[in-house]
Amino acid sequence: MDFKTEFKPLTVQPQEIEGKSFQMITEELGEHSFTDEQYPVVQRVIHASADFELGRSVLFHPDAVRAGVAAIRSGCKVIADVQMIQSGISKPRIEKFGGSVHVHISDPDVIEEAKRLNTTRAIVATRKAVKLAEGGIFAIGNAPTALLELIRLVKNGEAKPALIVGMPVGFVSAAESKEELAKLDLPFITNVGRKGGSPVTVAAINAISLMAEQQG
Amino acid sequence: MDFKTEFKPLTVQPQEIEGKSFQMITEELGEHSFTDEQYPVVQRVIHASADFELGRSVLFHPDAVRAGVAAIRSGCKVIADVQMIQSGISKPRIEKFGGSVHVHISDPDVIEEAKRLNTTRAIVATRKAVKLAEGGIFAIGNAPTALLELIRLVKNGEAKPALIVGMPVGFVSAAESKEELAKLDLPFITNVGRKGGSPVTVAAINAISLMAEQQG
Repeated sequence: MDFKTEFKPLTVQPQEIEGKSFQMITEELGEHSFTDEQYPVVQRVIHASADFELGRSVLFHPDAVRAGVAAIRSGCKVIADVQMIQSGISKPRIEKFGGSVHVHISDPDVIEEAKRLNTTRAIVATRKAVKLAEGGIFAIGNAPTALLELIRLVKNGEAKPALIVGMPVGFVSAAESKEELAKLDLPFITNVGRKGGSPVTVAAINAISLMAEQQG
Repeated sequence: MDFKTEFKPLTVQPQEIEGKSFQMITEELGEHSFTDEQYPVVQRVIHASADFELGRSVLFHPDAVRAGVAAIRSGCKVIADVQMIQSGISKPRIEKFGGSVHVHISDPDVIEEAKRLNTTRAIVATRKAVKLAEGGIFAIGNAPTALLELIRLVKNGEAKPALIVGMPVGFVSAAESKEELAKLDLPFITNVGRKGGSPVTVAAINAISLMAEQQG
């Protein structure tokens, strides 16, 4: 690739950019009540959103980080509710432990079944995922209906995920679905309110897989 | 797929959820100064982020929407800075006009070149993209360095995109890169401040491709 204009190497490299960002986040966040184990997750959530309000709203089940790290180290499946989350999750760190990242929302059988039942593809994809990924990690950042269905299946004893990262964004049912998640007695990471989304869900998963790698 | 528990069809269907969300957004946003052409973009940005502050911070070049719609209708290429954006963009509406969506950040030649030049892959991917997608739409939601490089190439007359949607999120250079974009005299959509990201960038592109389709 040649260009008319001269190429000037940047003084700021990718690792430096991340390091500087993390430092700014720690300084601006100031006092907080997250544990040392939880803080890297919050830091990456803020890094992905530039939103301290969202970062401060993150809620952890006491076992969440430990359970997530253990699940990744045991090679569990990670289930994303939408393609954007599957794309964003850093796969090498999950794959090195034998795990893999899946999304079922565009599977032909899911599309077919959702039409037949007159419901959302997210719900049908969740039902499919709990059968294929017992003991897996669920990463739900988009579809409140996926999260509500997963909660229903957990309550009925039909699903037992290692960790649910549930941070859907939106105006209809998103905040409510996260309130329901926060009542469960199993490892979860969620947040309060309407905000959330794919990048912050990805950030939480990537923070946990990084901790899994660092323990190795 | 059969489950022990009975399946209750939801009363709220996907189209209803979106319609209800859009209504809530219009009500809560209240007065604003966006044009009728710009408002659908802002509405989808708020829908994707649940963030009115971010929605209100969106800036449009006066020709942005019209140029974006025309480019999609002429079958232009859409270039994403990261995989998450490529995943999120609704492709059928772009492809029906002969267009396509591309991302170069993980191309082997880009990775190689970035190492050789000791710079970011985002910069090298941008240089590659402007050669392959003349007159295309650039969708940059992650890497300020990609946006800054694109702005530099535009200023040097080495790139002439139909539209730049530049809404990177972050602490280092994100806000600054968007300030620079807003100074250009070519069609752009951007926003003020650190916030932004893949979902809002995707939302802007999807809003424009929807308008392109509705004109047909």
